[in-house]
Amino acid sequence: MKAIVQTEEKNTASLELQDVPTPTLKPGEVLVEVKAAGVNRADLLQTQGNYPVPPGASEILGLECAGVIADPGDTDRQKGEEVACLLTGGGYAEFVAVPEGQLMPIPEGFSFVEAASIVEVACTVWSNIGMLAGLKEGQTFLVHGGAGGIGTFAVQMGKAMGAKVAVTTGSPEKLATCQQLGADILINYREEDFAEVLKNKVDVILDIIGAKYLGQNVKALAKDGHMVTIGLQGGVKGELNLGLLLAKRGTISATALRGRDDADKARIVAATIEAIWPMLADGRITPHIDHTLPLADAAKALKALEDGTVTGKLVLEV
Amino acid sequence: MKAIVQTEEKNTASLELQDVPTPTLKPGEVLVEVKAAGVNRADLLQTQGNYPVPPGASEILGLECAGVIADPGDTDRQKGEEVACLLTGGGYAEFVAVPEGQLMPIPEGFSFVEAASIVEVACTVWSNIGMLAGLKEGQTFLVHGGAGGIGTFAVQMGKAMGAKVAVTTGSPEKLATCQQLGADILINYREEDFAEVLKNKVDVILDIIGAKYLGQNVKALAKDGHMVTIGLQGGVKGELNLGLLLAKRGTISATALRGRDDADKARIVAATIEAIWPMLADGRITPHIDHTLPLADAAKALKALEDGTVTGKLVLEV
Ligand SMILES: NC(=O)c1ccc[n+]([C@@H]2O[C@H](COP(=O)([O-])OP(=O)(O)OC[C@H]3O[C@@H](n4cnc5c(N)ncnc54)[C@H](OP(=O)(O)O)[C@@H]3O)[C@@H](O)[C@H]2O)c1
Ligand SMILES: NC(=O)c1ccc[n+]([C@@H]2O[C@H](COP(=O)([O-])OP(=O)(O)OC[C@H]3O[C@@H](n4cnc5c(N)ncnc54)[C@H](OP(=O)(O)O)[C@@H]3O)[C@@H](O)[C@H]2O)c1
Repeated sequence: MKAIVQTEEKNTASLELQDVPTPTLKPGEVLVEVKAAGVNRADLLQTQGNYPVPPGASEILGLECAGVIADPGDTDRQKGEEVACLLTGGGYAEFVAVPEGQLMPIPEGFSFVEAASIVEVACTVWSNIGMLAGLKEGQTFLVHGGAGGIGTFAVQMGKAMGAKVAVTTGSPEKLATCQQLGADILINYREEDFAEVLKNKVDVILDIIGAKYLGQNVKALAKDGHMVTIGLQGGVKGELNLGLLLAKRGTISATALRGRDDADKARIVAATIEAIWPMLADGRITPHIDHTLPLADAAKALKALEDGTVTGKLVLEV
Repeated sequence: MKAIVQTEEKNTASLELQDVPTPTLKPGEVLVEVKAAGVNRADLLQTQGNYPVPPGASEILGLECAGVIADPGDTDRQKGEEVACLLTGGGYAEFVAVPEGQLMPIPEGFSFVEAASIVEVACTVWSNIGMLAGLKEGQTFLVHGGAGGIGTFAVQMGKAMGAKVAVTTGSPEKLATCQQLGADILINYREEDFAEVLKNKVDVILDIIGAKYLGQNVKALAKDGHMVTIGLQGGVKGELNLGLLLAKRGTISATALRGRDDADKARIVAATIEAIWPMLADGRITPHIDHTLPLADAAKALKALEDGTVTGKLVLEV
């Protein structure tokens, strides 16, 4: 099969479409013919050598895709079934092996491209904000990077859950996108300090910045607030004021989806289908796709992410 | 009535038994004649000026007591009913006003002194370890200061819940006490680094040290581990490695019981009676009382806590 292969370490530009062996199936896996593969910032980090591949996972990039079952392996699935897939790797290819617990139905009315754009963000955001932090109707929800792949989904999900949604982003255009998606409080982080605007007001924070925002996030938390860090774009080590956190009875979690074991992923996939798929079916959440590219242009896609010119998601078509 | 009054700011030794007005009841409160009042480290901090009294709370020390209802106010309680009470203040006195939601039955077979020793630790430890961190059978549970008031209770509760319990404390005598209470892993923090002994092994941490242990606590956490800070004996601001926390999918909470509103306290009191009172009734948890003193000797009691000579709890008899 054809797949994207990195020919030079730490060089994102060195991605090429090459012939590689088609994956063989382990027990409980199906082989999926990939029609569309979602692009994630983690893919960029991986090409830069900043995101080690979990042991046992495919070396090929790609954390989500949509396509057709080509070989159901030892499962009860049917050849030809259309599926969306949460992957631990391997999506930037013509075929990928997927544990059955990571298969999701294509959301009602979605194309392969749309389905491929939603899997990773839906599982990430629901597992952290719905399952872990337990966002509730009427609460205030802060989404950092509201116009990114994670952000555009999280804003809509927050609104669908009845929360008041605040966002940060770095440009007026991206703020306008967030507003269209329903965000209530719009903060350009280049002009305003979000912690001043939202001091003691935020019940749940979805953080992708890490160290650089730690102090400000704790300041923004309300009583019993919960911040969840899923990205470290602003560094790893920061000062935590435990006294302030204690006065607020606050909670800080930091999580990653990719390193979870199969059983844990299956649990999250099932919960995400139950909670989020109805919101996709009735249009409360719509995919926000900046543009699509052919699989061969994977390097271009990651370059665009790196340049910060993307609003919402990029998808590769196979 | 008689109550303990502090005559000089920040001087713990200046506590005196004086005549003060008996409290008047607000709606939903009962008047309790205090028979025994538990002593807590927070009382010491309050006399030192390091623990501001929450708005609206009694200026008199004392966060827990046991006694007899002297006036049921507008509630359906009976005069003469024996009760244990979670207080927001006011326990170092002959009478105290208590919101009905903070009344607990005297645990089966307990004296007033024993009951007064268990209320605050039971509500604190259960709300954090049972309700918030969700300690489960078979997990590893680290209790810092295992021989203190909080610690002696937490070790026994951990064992009763089927956890493997690790403790830190600063002397061989206190370690021996922890072992008698059932602790499985005994660490003298003056001789060993608990983070080395327990690296990546601990599912739930009950932390009373704060900043000084933050890095080590994160190091000790296992995958999906949860640390809860309830005390800041080792300072307030520490460095947090969010990258390490993310790799472990870890959670850090910091909470305090005293500042919660009445509804929240009532919720915790009810849950604690349900979960913990059966463990007290059948002896899985026994009160660990160092010694008792007359109410007039409150200053002596707090001095003993400050000197670090106490194992388990001190109780004042009225
Ligand atoms: N832990 C997990 O399981 C998991 C899963 C998925 C994603 N992630 C992480 O989540 C993050 C977002 O992923 P993504 O795919 O959504 O990436 P993305 O589409 O590239 O979005 C990142 C966004 O961050 C914004 N941003 C940059 N600096 C900012 C700042 N100082 N304050 C606020 N926003 C800022 C950028 O917008 P501006 O132009 O406004 O700066 C951009 O829209 C990445 O770090 C990724 O690795 C983690
Ligand atoms: N947030 C809340 O809701 C809440 C409620 C109750 C209590 N608390 C807090 O919890 C803490 C404990 O309260 P307590 O009433 O149990 O006090 P306590 O009886 O005085 O116990 C404190 C214990 O800490 C131990 N200790 C001191 N330094 C230590 C270190 N470096 N490592 C490990 N252990 C150490 C001491 O034993 P050694 O001799 O071994 O050092 C002592 O046994 C206090 O800070 C208190 O304010 C908070």
